[in-house]
Amino acid sequence: MIYDVIIIGSGPAGLTAAIYAKRAELNLIIIEKAGLSGGQIINTYEVDNYPGLPGIGGFDLSIKFREHADKLGATFVSGEVNGFSLEGDIKVVTMDEGIQYKARSVVIATGGAPRHLNTEGEEKLSGMGVSYCATCDGAFFRNKTVAVVGGGDVAIEDAIFLARLCKKVYVIHRRDEFRASKSITSRLLALENVTILWDSVIEFIQGDEVVKSIDIKNIKTDKKENREVEGVFIAVGYEPNSDVYQKVVETDEAGYIRAGENCETNIPGVFAAGDVRTKELRQIVTAAADGANAITAVEKYLNQIF
Amino acid sequence: MIYDVIIIGSGPAGLTAAIYAKRAELNLIIIEKAGLSGGQIINTYEVDNYPGLPGIGGFDLSIKFREHADKLGATFVSGEVNGFSLEGDIKVVTMDEGIQYKARSVVIATGGAPRHLNTEGEEKLSGMGVSYCATCDGAFFRNKTVAVVGGGDVAIEDAIFLARLCKKVYVIHRRDEFRASKSITSRLLALENVTILWDSVIEFIQGDEVVKSIDIKNIKTDKKENREVEGVFIAVGYEPNSDVYQKVVETDEAGYIRAGENCETNIPGVFAAGDVRTKELRQIVTAAADGANAITAVEKYLNQIF
Repeated sequence: MIYDVIIIGSGPAGLTAAIYAKRAELNLIIIEKAGLSGGQIINTYEVDNYPGLPGIGGFDLSIKFREHADKLGATFVSGEVNGFSLEGDIKVVTMDEGIQYKARSVVIATGGAPRHLNTEGEEKLSGMGVSYCATCDGAFFRNKTVAVVGGGDVAIEDAIFLARLCKKVYVIHRRDEFRASKSITSRLLALENVTILWDSVIEFIQGDEVVKSIDIKNIKTDKKENREVEGVFIAVGYEPNSDVYQKVVETDEAGYIRAGENCETNIPGVFAAGDVRTKELRQIVTAAADGANAITAVEKYLNQIF
Repeated sequence: MIYDVIIIGSGPAGLTAAIYAKRAELNLIIIEKAGLSGGQIINTYEVDNYPGLPGIGGFDLSIKFREHADKLGATFVSGEVNGFSLEGDIKVVTMDEGIQYKARSVVIATGGAPRHLNTEGEEKLSGMGVSYCATCDGAFFRNKTVAVVGGGDVAIEDAIFLARLCKKVYVIHRRDEFRASKSITSRLLALENVTILWDSVIEFIQGDEVVKSIDIKNIKTDKKENREVEGVFIAVGYEPNSDVYQKVVETDEAGYIRAGENCETNIPGVFAAGDVRTKELRQIVTAAADGANAITAVEKYLNQIF
């Protein structure tokens, strides 16, 4: 059996690709690692920015996406991709157990994950005050005190954004200057409700059910202090799940698969959709749009080649 | 009052922009022409490709989008934009009645509309067999007989797509050759369940509640015939609602506002989102993604300039 398309990954990008592919009557399988669809949203407490479904639980949203794909008859396969051959007209994907799937095209929608601090309390309170996305979760912290960890563009943009809605924002950075561009840095420094804690790291995120405070250490002076916060926004980078593909598919320095809005990679018939590709904004709705764009590109490709 | 952003248009792009802008605590108004939100989806009978909400009525989906924006407190203004000044740091939008709104940025999300044939029966049966989007509606015509009208790339791609799922596809084209590229044209010509009616136009789309048949005329021989079809896909072009902006904002030959995935136009602080901008795929989910991308670009712009 040679499929029209193999979709790797079952987050919003992969599931939307499956929805569009089934509606286009393409033969497809969708490979998912976890045996659970939804990608990062599975672990999201509440999603308030997927248009049309305000305030939905992340897990509930993942079920709605999956049910949509199921309703259209998409075939799911569980397991890890172990190897592949993507460069010929017929692409081959090999699973951990050795099973091989063949298709005329492949959509890589393997997503990514924010880098963690690996600080005590971080994992336990993830989604309960600890967040990796200010755009997604900021609005839940209106008039509260929060901390932002990081010193790059995203951290500073997050801090400026949060300063508009929160009572107080601490920016905790392990160095004594930001990597972020000067223009937004000076904008941050002008904000009255922002305090910057230079040369500092979080040692412990305190709280039983929700975040209550953070233990901070100055790594130059070794001085420790505790600050009451209700939210901790961690913005220390993001890791695309592209490791196994990097030898074959072109990526940028950070490992994102190079692909524009039409999701085309450097390899004909191979497309990258969602958080794994080079793009400005990684959100559920932009990942879903990628799934639609990728299948449209797949159809154009199949029309031209086969 | 100077707003952070004025959003013009309340389809999926404009409403998603409003959702993202409100969550970012930007001051905004959203201007809508019709006094009714939703854009083109208001008149769509059923939407089956907006991920997470399979098989929803277009009008119901438009209400869900609008309620999401309302829940977050977006302010709506009804009326037609009559003039504007977009090039300075403070943008001014003037309404028909002379009221002026000022803002630091503007998102143009005015959408577009498919060109109509203006054939008898077309308007009455729109959404009841007459469709302007094969990607959106094709799956409703599985194993049925349909007609596609047009001769450009989109028409031929639509016909190939429909041939996969429909019993029979007529392609009706007023000339004796297609404008579409050779590669996809030859692919179409090879399909067994496709019949091309050259030099032909539809004179009448018959049916009381749903499409039953079409009266076709050969414009060279004047010969008339009737064919039974359940669907008529009209793919004779699309018109962006960009007329009033074309003097100021750069557009392509077809009138689409030139803007990439980040929605930036040639004018700083002016963004184009949804069907009105240059893009590959015009779908609800890609319009919604544009709304999110546009507001992210607005925030970056406001951070840099103000």
